[in-house]
Amino acid sequence: MSQNVFVSETCRLNLVNPILIQGLPGLGFVGKIAVDFLIDQLKPKRIAELYSTYIGLPDGDMGVRVELDGTFTLPKYEFYASAETEPNFLFLTGDIQPVAWGQYNVANSILDFASKQGCKMVLCLGGYSVQGRRMDLVYAVGDTVDTVEELKQLQGVQIAQSGAVKGAFGVLLGLAKQRKVKCFGLLGATPGTHPDLRAARNVLKVLVGVYRLPIELTDMDRKVEEMEARVKKFREFQSALPQQDQPSQTDVPRGYIS
Amino acid sequence: MSQNVFVSETCRLNLVNPILIQGLPGLGFVGKIAVDFLIDQLKPKRIAELYSTYIGLPDGDMGVRVELDGTFTLPKYEFYASAETEPNFLFLTGDIQPVAWGQYNVANSILDFASKQGCKMVLCLGGYSVQGRRMDLVYAVGDTVDTVEELKQLQGVQIAQSGAVKGAFGVLLGLAKQRKVKCFGLLGATPGTHPDLRAARNVLKVLVGVYRLPIELTDMDRKVEEMEARVKKFREFQSALPQQDQPSQTDVPRGYIS
Amino acid sequence: MSQNVFVSETCRLNLVNPILIQGLPGLGFVGKIAVDFLIDQLKPKRIAELYSTYIGLPDGDMGVRVELDGTFTLPKYEFYASAETEPNFLFLTGDIQPVAWGQYNVANSILDFASKQGCKMVLCLGGYSVQGRRMDLVYAVGDTVDTVEELKQLQGVQIAQSGAVKGAFGVLLGLAKQRKVKCFGLLGATPGTHPDLRAARNVLKVLVGVYRLPIELTDMDRKVEEMEARVKKFREFQSALPQQDQPSQTDVPRGYIS
Amino acid sequence: MSQNVFVSETCRLNLVNPILIQGLPGLGFVGKIAVDFLIDQLKPKRIAELYSTYIGLPDGDMGVRVELDGTFTLPKYEFYASAETEPNFLFLTGDIQPVAWGQYNVANSILDFASKQGCKMVLCLGGYSVQGRRMDLVYAVGDTVDTVEELKQLQGVQIAQSGAVKGAFGVLLGLAKQRKVKCFGLLGATPGTHPDLRAARNVLKVLVGVYRLPIELTDMDRKVEEMEARVKKFREFQSALPQQDQPSQTDVPRGYIS
Repeated sequence: MSQNVFVSETCRLNLVNPILIQGLPGLGFVGKIAVDFLIDQLKPKRIAELYSTYIGLPDGDMGVRVELDGTFTLPKYEFYASAETEPNFLFLTGDIQPVAWGQYNVANSILDFASKQGCKMVLCLGGYSVQGRRMDLVYAVGDTVDTVEELKQLQGVQIAQSGAVKGAFGVLLGLAKQRKVKCFGLLGATPGTHPDLRAARNVLKVLVGVYRLPIELTDMDRKVEEMEARVKKFREFQSALPQQDQPSQTDVPRGYIS
Repeated sequence: MSQNVFVSETCRLNLVNPILIQGLPGLGFVGKIAVDFLIDQLKPKRIAELYSTYIGLPDGDMGVRVELDGTFTLPKYEFYASAETEPNFLFLTGDIQPVAWGQYNVANSILDFASKQGCKMVLCLGGYSVQGRRMDLVYAVGDTVDTVEELKQLQGVQIAQSGAVKGAFGVLLGLAKQRKVKCFGLLGATPGTHPDLRAARNVLKVLVGVYRLPIELTDMDRKVEEMEARVKKFREFQSALPQQDQPSQTDVPRGYIS
Repeated sequence: MSQNVFVSETCRLNLVNPILIQGLPGLGFVGKIAVDFLIDQLKPKRIAELYSTYIGLPDGDMGVRVELDGTFTLPKYEFYASAETEPNFLFLTGDIQPVAWGQYNVANSILDFASKQGCKMVLCLGGYSVQGRRMDLVYAVGDTVDTVEELKQLQGVQIAQSGAVKGAFGVLLGLAKQRKVKCFGLLGATPGTHPDLRAARNVLKVLVGVYRLPIELTDMDRKVEEMEARVKKFREFQSALPQQDQPSQTDVPRGYIS
Repeated sequence: MSQNVFVSETCRLNLVNPILIQGLPGLGFVGKIAVDFLIDQLKPKRIAELYSTYIGLPDGDMGVRVELDGTFTLPKYEFYASAETEPNFLFLTGDIQPVAWGQYNVANSILDFASKQGCKMVLCLGGYSVQGRRMDLVYAVGDTVDTVEELKQLQGVQIAQSGAVKGAFGVLLGLAKQRKVKCFGLLGATPGTHPDLRAARNVLKVLVGVYRLPIELTDMDRKVEEMEARVKKFREFQSALPQQDQPSQTDVPRGYIS
């Protein structure tokens, strides 16, 4: 492990071939929302924290966050593990992407730690930018043609066929493949203009199907409806105003994935 | 210790569990003013200097400062120690923050050195940006809920409950907590628009109370009055001028801490 | 090899003193087009891949490229080798230059790998920016006066006599010379305003002459003619339009090489 | 020595306590002009080259320079040594400053090499920005009060008493002092608006006096007169033109040293 990234174990669990599922902030916050919901529902144990000079506060500055109770914490990623589900899971969540020149170092440290836990498979969750196309789809990418064949069998999943997957999502998958660890990514279609609960829900629905997760998506459904009602109201309010300087909805480039 | 940071000891003292107190330039220069005043009053010994490729001249360039006597010195941090106070103290002072990508390296080198001196507690001094709120307050953050409970007992101290503590202040506390070294921060409320002697004085007053320091704050009080008289005169002069392009006083974001 | 660059061998060939030929994107994409054509024609074996935190996607971001079949790959350089040609060749191709601060690290890793394959000579292909001068020339630079003397004997080749060769082309040659590995560069004259097939063809023609390569340049000739017909048609179309805001053709600085 | 800086010896001389004299590009190019003139006159032997990922082409890009004879060279610093003068000298010359984040690494490598040659004293040559003050002065800075006392004895030398010495000049002196190697700097007063031969001549005159160097300054004098005649003619020509947009001569900040 690099001296610029350090992983501190907080508890030890006996995991059997856990699947690493990473969800960090990215397009529409889809991956982060999905992983945080999984952590919320499956109640896995927090087993380790990752700190790094490459991981700053959400605005990119170095420092610590102050909590409501007056304590503080360095920016960090957290590993949660569930030994009781079948299969076992190892979740990675965090509030920010590493800086560009630290992406490889951080991803390699994550894979080193996962490998020490016996991890043989890596899954990244994120968003896929589409406009005017079907918004209920989940796009998938895989390390090999065989993995892609398996992904094609999943309901509601379409194979991504071009473009680039940027940031921590792409780098973790790329380096996992490099290590010959089976890996794939699920990307919820999203306009990417706001934290997209619906896209996260679509990704979760695929996961629930694949792993028969004991998860209630109704909570998520309620949140999605609330959010969409709020957005609708805001748009009505906005369209009642005289037109001025509205940022175009097509600002996000077509086909950008993250 | 990284090859990019080196600490050079200039004198050896036998310290017993000294408390490290760091004060570097930041919001309102509160921390630096406070630590420099403590050094001025307690007359601790200079025991070490820290040099680093991450610490430049005050304008950020690399080079040396030329003194009045024609000698020169690299940018550096200085450690001062007092073995005669109860408790012992280790002070860290300097003229500039490390560059962003060197913050972790520098803070780790500081903690390595402090640990070699037997240090079991770390305290950072700095400023807390407030507007229109009570300006005589000192905000505090702590590594644990227990530390925060102790801080609540201090007169004139209020617990900070959100936001971020940026720069060397935050990183030192964050990494100290990470090492399980007890640590906390005291932040003088300040508009942050000028070197704020009054905020530094408020922080010092708390310290004097906690550690029963043999310090005369009257010197500081006189300086505060002089400064405030000068600022007042300048404002009267300014308000007599025709209004133009005055930078708004609310330029500093609310709730920013450093 | 640096921890930031890693070379992964995919197949082992017994090579006898292979010549390393590098062609990466640069002025007019001359080097890349030429090396990719050589790989296409000589059908060498892919023997290794180079990955690095210094090599991003073509737009400079970190991540993976998604292929048409739904698989993904990290940005990488590829080594191809032909043990059947006389001499043996080792080709290096890729889609992007390393970032500036990684150029030395990457070039040294390339030379380490080439040296392990028994490589005793290095050749870089690229473009040379000229305007209004003879466009069919290939410019050459060499590590020593002796090498330059040899280069002078080649038909259609002129010795470059000033300027700088920038980027991966220059750094690989510079470090090879530094290691006392014989090395030289061939630079096709190009306006540098578009991917320049003709300049690449001129470079290839020199190579075919020097190494008696079993290569058909007629394929390339046909492509060159198609491209030039398209460019001509576009210019006629353009000149029929009312004049406005046309970027001047002299935007590329004279004498810039890459 | 760092892996990012490497020194390659080209010839071995038996030196007795040589004095290292560094002259790199800086304000008015004073240091570089002076050292290059010393090399030209004393005809020392080239004994080593320093290459580094921190040293680029004069425009900051990475690559190689192409010479008139068609050969190429990486950007480098060169060490020259004279074993026949009394004292012995070790000269360091180059065409560019290291990038900011490489200054410490490069300077430490220079000091490592000099120390291996038995060097016990370091001297940096450069320019000192002044306006409207006496232009024939040479300013000096020293590592200790004792060194400064010695410098005060020199004719035509004035002690610098504030400001900063930036870049490679300052960092080399700072790190030499840090290693307890005696060191000082001589800075020719210069407006800094052009390569300043006169300022370099003033610095050389001091050196000739101190070390009784067998150097003819008349060559330099002739060059100075030619240059100043040319500048005068240009100014007359310029003042005959209608006034427009002339960059003010006071653009260079007062008191800036390099």
